[in-house]
Amino acid sequence: MFPGATDEREVTDATDDAIRGSHTDTGGQESDRDGANFVVVGAPLDATTTFHPGTRFGPQRIRSFAAPFDDYDHRSDRHFSDLGVVDRGDVRAWDDVAEYLEYLTSTLREVVWNDGIPLLLGGEHTVSLAGVRAVEPEVFVCLDAHLDCYDVYDGNPLSHAAVTRRIVEDVDSIEEAILLGVRTGSEAEWERAAADDVTVVPPEDVAEWSHDGQFADRDVYLSVDIDAVDPGYAPGTGTMEPFGLEPRDIRDVVHAVAPHADGFDVVEVNDRDDGQAAALAAKLVREFVFSHVDG
Amino acid sequence: MFPGATDEREVTDATDDAIRGSHTDTGGQESDRDGANFVVVGAPLDATTTFHPGTRFGPQRIRSFAAPFDDYDHRSDRHFSDLGVVDRGDVRAWDDVAEYLEYLTSTLREVVWNDGIPLLLGGEHTVSLAGVRAVEPEVFVCLDAHLDCYDVYDGNPLSHAAVTRRIVEDVDSIEEAILLGVRTGSEAEWERAAADDVTVVPPEDVAEWSHDGQFADRDVYLSVDIDAVDPGYAPGTGTMEPFGLEPRDIRDVVHAVAPHADGFDVVEVNDRDDGQAAALAAKLVREFVFSHVDG
Amino acid sequence: MFPGATDEREVTDATDDAIRGSHTDTGGQESDRDGANFVVVGAPLDATTTFHPGTRFGPQRIRSFAAPFDDYDHRSDRHFSDLGVVDRGDVRAWDDVAEYLEYLTSTLREVVWNDGIPLLLGGEHTVSLAGVRAVEPEVFVCLDAHLDCYDVYDGNPLSHAAVTRRIVEDVDSIEEAILLGVRTGSEAEWERAAADDVTVVPPEDVAEWSHDGQFADRDVYLSVDIDAVDPGYAPGTGTMEPFGLEPRDIRDVVHAVAPHADGFDVVEVNDRDDGQAAALAAKLVREFVFSHVDG
Amino acid sequence: MFPGATDEREVTDATDDAIRGSHTDTGGQESDRDGANFVVVGAPLDATTTFHPGTRFGPQRIRSFAAPFDDYDHRSDRHFSDLGVVDRGDVRAWDDVAEYLEYLTSTLREVVWNDGIPLLLGGEHTVSLAGVRAVEPEVFVCLDAHLDCYDVYDGNPLSHAAVTRRIVEDVDSIEEAILLGVRTGSEAEWERAAADDVTVVPPEDVAEWSHDGQFADRDVYLSVDIDAVDPGYAPGTGTMEPFGLEPRDIRDVVHAVAPHADGFDVVEVNDRDDGQAAALAAKLVREFVFSHVDG
Amino acid sequence: MFPGATDEREVTDATDDAIRGSHTDTGGQESDRDGANFVVVGAPLDATTTFHPGTRFGPQRIRSFAAPFDDYDHRSDRHFSDLGVVDRGDVRAWDDVAEYLEYLTSTLREVVWNDGIPLLLGGEHTVSLAGVRAVEPEVFVCLDAHLDCYDVYDGNPLSHAAVTRRIVEDVDSIEEAILLGVRTGSEAEWERAAADDVTVVPPEDVAEWSHDGQFADRDVYLSVDIDAVDPGYAPGTGTMEPFGLEPRDIRDVVHAVAPHADGFDVVEVNDRDDGQAAALAAKLVREFVFSHVDG
Amino acid sequence: MFPGATDEREVTDATDDAIRGSHTDTGGQESDRDGANFVVVGAPLDATTTFHPGTRFGPQRIRSFAAPFDDYDHRSDRHFSDLGVVDRGDVRAWDDVAEYLEYLTSTLREVVWNDGIPLLLGGEHTVSLAGVRAVEPEVFVCLDAHLDCYDVYDGNPLSHAAVTRRIVEDVDSIEEAILLGVRTGSEAEWERAAADDVTVVPPEDVAEWSHDGQFADRDVYLSVDIDAVDPGYAPGTGTMEPFGLEPRDIRDVVHAVAPHADGFDVVEVNDRDDGQAAALAAKLVREFVFSHVDG
Ligand SMILES: [Mn+2]
Ligand SMILES: [Mn+2]
Ligand SMILES: [Mn+2]
Ligand SMILES: [Mn+2]
Ligand SMILES: [Mn+2]
Ligand SMILES: [Mn+2]
Ligand SMILES: [Mn+2]
Ligand SMILES: [Mn+2]
Ligand SMILES: [Mn+2]
Ligand SMILES: [Mn+2]
Ligand SMILES: [Mn+2]
Ligand SMILES: [Mn+2]
Repeated sequence: MFPGATDEREVTDATDDAIRGSHTDTGGQESDRDGANFVVVGAPLDATTTFHPGTRFGPQRIRSFAAPFDDYDHRSDRHFSDLGVVDRGDVRAWDDVAEYLEYLTSTLREVVWNDGIPLLLGGEHTVSLAGVRAVEPEVFVCLDAHLDCYDVYDGNPLSHAAVTRRIVEDVDSIEEAILLGVRTGSEAEWERAAADDVTVVPPEDVAEWSHDGQFADRDVYLSVDIDAVDPGYAPGTGTMEPFGLEPRDIRDVVHAVAPHADGFDVVEVNDRDDGQAAALAAKLVREFVFSHVDG
Repeated sequence: MFPGATDEREVTDATDDAIRGSHTDTGGQESDRDGANFVVVGAPLDATTTFHPGTRFGPQRIRSFAAPFDDYDHRSDRHFSDLGVVDRGDVRAWDDVAEYLEYLTSTLREVVWNDGIPLLLGGEHTVSLAGVRAVEPEVFVCLDAHLDCYDVYDGNPLSHAAVTRRIVEDVDSIEEAILLGVRTGSEAEWERAAADDVTVVPPEDVAEWSHDGQFADRDVYLSVDIDAVDPGYAPGTGTMEPFGLEPRDIRDVVHAVAPHADGFDVVEVNDRDDGQAAALAAKLVREFVFSHVDG
Repeated sequence: MFPGATDEREVTDATDDAIRGSHTDTGGQESDRDGANFVVVGAPLDATTTFHPGTRFGPQRIRSFAAPFDDYDHRSDRHFSDLGVVDRGDVRAWDDVAEYLEYLTSTLREVVWNDGIPLLLGGEHTVSLAGVRAVEPEVFVCLDAHLDCYDVYDGNPLSHAAVTRRIVEDVDSIEEAILLGVRTGSEAEWERAAADDVTVVPPEDVAEWSHDGQFADRDVYLSVDIDAVDPGYAPGTGTMEPFGLEPRDIRDVVHAVAPHADGFDVVEVNDRDDGQAAALAAKLVREFVFSHVDG
Repeated sequence: MFPGATDEREVTDATDDAIRGSHTDTGGQESDRDGANFVVVGAPLDATTTFHPGTRFGPQRIRSFAAPFDDYDHRSDRHFSDLGVVDRGDVRAWDDVAEYLEYLTSTLREVVWNDGIPLLLGGEHTVSLAGVRAVEPEVFVCLDAHLDCYDVYDGNPLSHAAVTRRIVEDVDSIEEAILLGVRTGSEAEWERAAADDVTVVPPEDVAEWSHDGQFADRDVYLSVDIDAVDPGYAPGTGTMEPFGLEPRDIRDVVHAVAPHADGFDVVEVNDRDDGQAAALAAKLVREFVFSHVDG
Repeated sequence: MFPGATDEREVTDATDDAIRGSHTDTGGQESDRDGANFVVVGAPLDATTTFHPGTRFGPQRIRSFAAPFDDYDHRSDRHFSDLGVVDRGDVRAWDDVAEYLEYLTSTLREVVWNDGIPLLLGGEHTVSLAGVRAVEPEVFVCLDAHLDCYDVYDGNPLSHAAVTRRIVEDVDSIEEAILLGVRTGSEAEWERAAADDVTVVPPEDVAEWSHDGQFADRDVYLSVDIDAVDPGYAPGTGTMEPFGLEPRDIRDVVHAVAPHADGFDVVEVNDRDDGQAAALAAKLVREFVFSHVDG
Repeated sequence: MFPGATDEREVTDATDDAIRGSHTDTGGQESDRDGANFVVVGAPLDATTTFHPGTRFGPQRIRSFAAPFDDYDHRSDRHFSDLGVVDRGDVRAWDDVAEYLEYLTSTLREVVWNDGIPLLLGGEHTVSLAGVRAVEPEVFVCLDAHLDCYDVYDGNPLSHAAVTRRIVEDVDSIEEAILLGVRTGSEAEWERAAADDVTVVPPEDVAEWSHDGQFADRDVYLSVDIDAVDPGYAPGTGTMEPFGLEPRDIRDVVHAVAPHADGFDVVEVNDRDDGQAAALAAKLVREFVFSHVDG
């Protein structure tokens, strides 16, 4: 459970054969989330991860490395445990990504319908598609080293490397994507990113970036691919890309965007470092919550 | 949660200041454990660990490495998830070991009073004292590389290295201890172990050992210090002691003793290997349950 | 390249967009493998791996940990590098498992048509299906901790947990499967394994097992899932299952079966240990080759 | 031994029973430390460590990772081995923290009485209390991510999380504490830190901070909790707290404060990274010595 | 093979006895490198490495961690795979360093004679001597934490710690060395470095450094010892030296120098981190190539 | 220091330039070792290590992992600390192996001349040559996976892979070598090993092996290459060779040979596992001492 959150994990327990022979709908029961503002959901998808796998352990790592953080936040003068965060546990992943994303979307949509703000813990970046489908924002703000604008990657339109393209092109509500910290992509991706509905802010310019009121009347979804930061600060991710952001750059973006955002995720954390990636991810979840409440 | 067990973790959530400024009694609410036979309780105590610390991550590791096991057990022709195992989560440890053990004892005693069999996941070996106090058996059967018969170790009578002595001498119900796989101790410990109330079975003789009906009318508590096995099979423990048991030796002892045992623990697992210690520990928990049911 | 093997890796090089935007057929050119008896092919599939992923690094690890082995083998009085082993490198995996297995099958079939014996380095166990399809044996001999007899696992008929079932039921040439070292499976799997076309030899009986001339006139394919061995000897695998075989048990099976086998694989090695799994796997590849030549 | 220091470890050797059955005073003999200015003492206390334990290996790691450093320092034009640094080895820790701190204090007091400057290698932050008691400074300057101003933490007034409070309130000589790089604490800690005797300099302001002659007539003790730096630079510590200092910020503070300081420690280094934390800690010990000599 | 490069590894294969009993010349055959501009050569020398060994795995790690990089580079608008990079594999190291360097030099000289630019992957820094001998530049530009200006280190004039001295003094073509990011050395090394033929730019000044046309008519060789960067960004190196460069500082130097350089190496990467050092090194190889082509 | 041993490390301290610019004789002073029977000497040579380097950390690891062992040994009813073991620390290695071996030999010879029994902690196997030269035994008993009978390996007659050959052929006192647990070697090595002065006992026969009084009147030196054991029990070694000994096999050989041996070493331990290799090595040192005393 995310430290400071209320535990709302499902208390059903399926037998082995149920789990393995098929993937039954494990949801359905009502939780009394009245007044809950933020709902942590783990999405340990690890199906299309490139290079270093292990995002299936992301949610568990993030929750674990959140343990030593103080409940109290000095900047906002608030206690995390006062802010109505609940943790619904993980939506266990299976091999059919399309089907999984649909199931995850419905879980998150229920959160949204109850006026909750999803805090999605990846898992590979693909899970953001479920987050965005559930929240239906106008703007997708994303911190990432990569454009993730492939149309198909390795024959797969639901690859983590295609997630931003899917979001921009297939989610009706979306008007534009703002990609911060991006430093690499294929030629075709860069061409796609040159279109009007995508703005790319290179790492060097992120510290100066501000949204200048452009979010005024629009709903925003904020996604943090942990590889946006320099690999020195988060080696536990699938594809390290040097020359990235400083942790404080990301924090400042989270502070700026959170007040406008109705959904948040942090993705691409794996278990292949000494905890740096997970500790940073866990901290950013909290920064989002504190900043949203204060916004 | 232990895979296949029903989740009965407490759903309260204390604020940071409550957690850290003092350690309030977090128990009290009634769980409907009717018909539950086995109750998993994590006891992440890591206060007196010698050499390599990390037993605080033992319960979490053991649950995690149980994930890939099949629910079904071929030997007993049973499903683990049918056997009424519930997982009450961890009893968070704090610095005052005596006080913690008391609190843990009361938690486990409640299990016993509800006719449950505690399955305690350590944490350092000291936690067995709570298990034995709760179960009040006549016989303490223990797999361990060490005698754990110090009177005081490093000035501490509640050290993991003194746990067997505490159990034998301070728990009224105990008539004798049977120590299997032991290969080391101080001279004073060996002298203590030479008394009538302690039987030591060296590693070489464990495969041949049998209890020969001596448990007939007596209650037994079974404790597995994972360092009983050879370090090649469980490097993730505080103090590796070479020339230990084979995993199958331990399994066979668990099979033989479980039908007579009203309490079980597996202790001294830490997070400093590639999962070998935790996988073995998790398996032994299941072997205990299957064998007890079948006994 | 596998040490002692001749390098026959493809020397073409596709550009990034070709690699990522689609997966073109990279084969086609003829290699002069006349007289080559054994062909190493890496199959780094890591799509359905349960629990600990990383089989994508299996082939690379196995080749790397083969480096310190002597070319000369005392038992057979032969040099590995004299035995006509070539290494064709890896068949890079992509997300569509069915399609990948077809492509891999055709690569291995070409090996077989040239009278070569495939030595397949996994990758998850699923790749054995390609090996068996290419070799078309009558008997599938498999060392594994698991039955791998699911019909569908997690909705996926091509899961590693279903590979033995696929092989027994869907490959026409197969008459029976002999599963050595198996100690776990679901109830449905055990039921399936009770049928006449499957023989299960539990770990305790493997040392005594012999094929007693039953392979006399039949073609055999030998598959080693590295998790057949006890986790103490190979922690670097997806799902550790305690109480496994000794390395020498596996070696002796390889010695006994290799003379009758026209195909071999070693699978489920990942990069999450200190090299134990890969070193053992690499050694078994060599034992297979020496024993086949001598058979 | 710290590279470049003179070895003054005690050459007595206690038997096992003496070591374990009780903790005898192992001091007493006189060493000829005349003219020695700096005395390294390891204090491997690991009793109240939060989250990731392992500070017991801190002193050993710090000494080990100091090995590759050049004896000569270009900035100060001095050789480390010329500066009269001796290493008295470790004061082995035991379970009674209060008693241990007293013993450690007396060891360090002896250093001070011989006009030496203690260079304490932790161990958890609690050991700074012994350092400050021995040195009896007016000012406690501390680099830390945390306020460490709990009155009691987990029921323990001698927790590492209470060390600054203990120092400010219970050491008579202390007039004020200056806490640099602090970014977190409980609400009660922040309230305590708002009092006149505590100054908090947040990470963003540390580069600009200077002591402006306020140390003119006062004795200073400098303590470096390695978690003051960003976790990217020192993951090997108990509780990673993102958004920390740059290594150069800490170095510059050490340069500025060392000339005024009569005692120094570096604490909270453990063995759970690839050496980053220990290498930085070892370097800071040297920076302190060079700067003090030059001051 | 370096991703995006054409594979030109030697396809001969020596037997064990040939390999181990002596080290025969394995070269000789002609490769058709017409039009190839860049030639990757691995030089896994690990003979004089100080402190943490493992540079023998450097080339393999660098190639491996280059895998996730996009072929396309946005800054230069070029594809890496279009730039005529070939990978000749590794020149296997043996115990006689002098002899090995000669052999390596002749391999690299052949590259130069065919108008290729060597991209040498270390291996310890000593291998740069072979690179410089082959290229015969006037200027040696080197990013390093260390002066590497020992005359003899540990009795060895071919130590990695003496490589810059060897290059400056023993390679006839060399007029001067420019050492960027250096922060440590022995007193004798600093004295040597004070001579006219060596320029030292400390870490703090590297961001401001520019070559101001001083390379106009001169051939340059660029060497990157990965320990030039701060250890937080590259812990996987032999001797971590804190207070180093930012990755972007190094990148900018590579951009500035590459257009003037006829040879490049990146050295001192080992396998003792989570990939940070290798990922950065791999990236720098690509930055060099893109910048040279654009220069 | 080896736990339970008396510290006799040299207390001199050389400056950096002395250490690095040349390697001066650091010996010479007399230690009062009267009555000392056993002298621990670390020999962290790591010059010719094949595959996985790191034997330079062997002595430090072995001493460290000996920490948790009880001083008292039940089998012999003795305390380790009563047996006159002293630890002289490490003889720091440098690049010239021949010169280093000479220096090490003279250090060990001094031990022998004072009627001490050297307990050498490697370092690579090459250091056994110094041990044997100093002890001048008639019989060399060696537990190893490898023959180590190369005449030259990689052009080097002082390679670890040639150490047994050097000992048998170049040390005058030696009459024969008995190699236990050996399972691999080159063809030339096996031919050499077939001569009368070498006996090879394969792993399968070691449990049955006994020396049958053949050591009656002869001096013996016992060397344990940790790779003799199966890699599952000691992955932290340079070259893992599967199908090795059980730890108890090695222990029993040590028990049998120690009473006849005047010198002992344990070699080829590195720092690349979770402590398994070092813990076993440390234990074997103690078994040797207890058994020698009791012999
Ligand atoms: Mn992404
Ligand atoms: Mn990304
Ligand atoms: Mn115990
Ligand atoms: Mn124990
Ligand atoms: Mn399996
Ligand atoms: Mn399988
Ligand atoms: Mn602190
Ligand atoms: Mn702190
Ligand atoms: Mn260098
Ligand atoms: Mn360097
Ligand atoms: Mn050897
Ligand atoms: Mn060996």
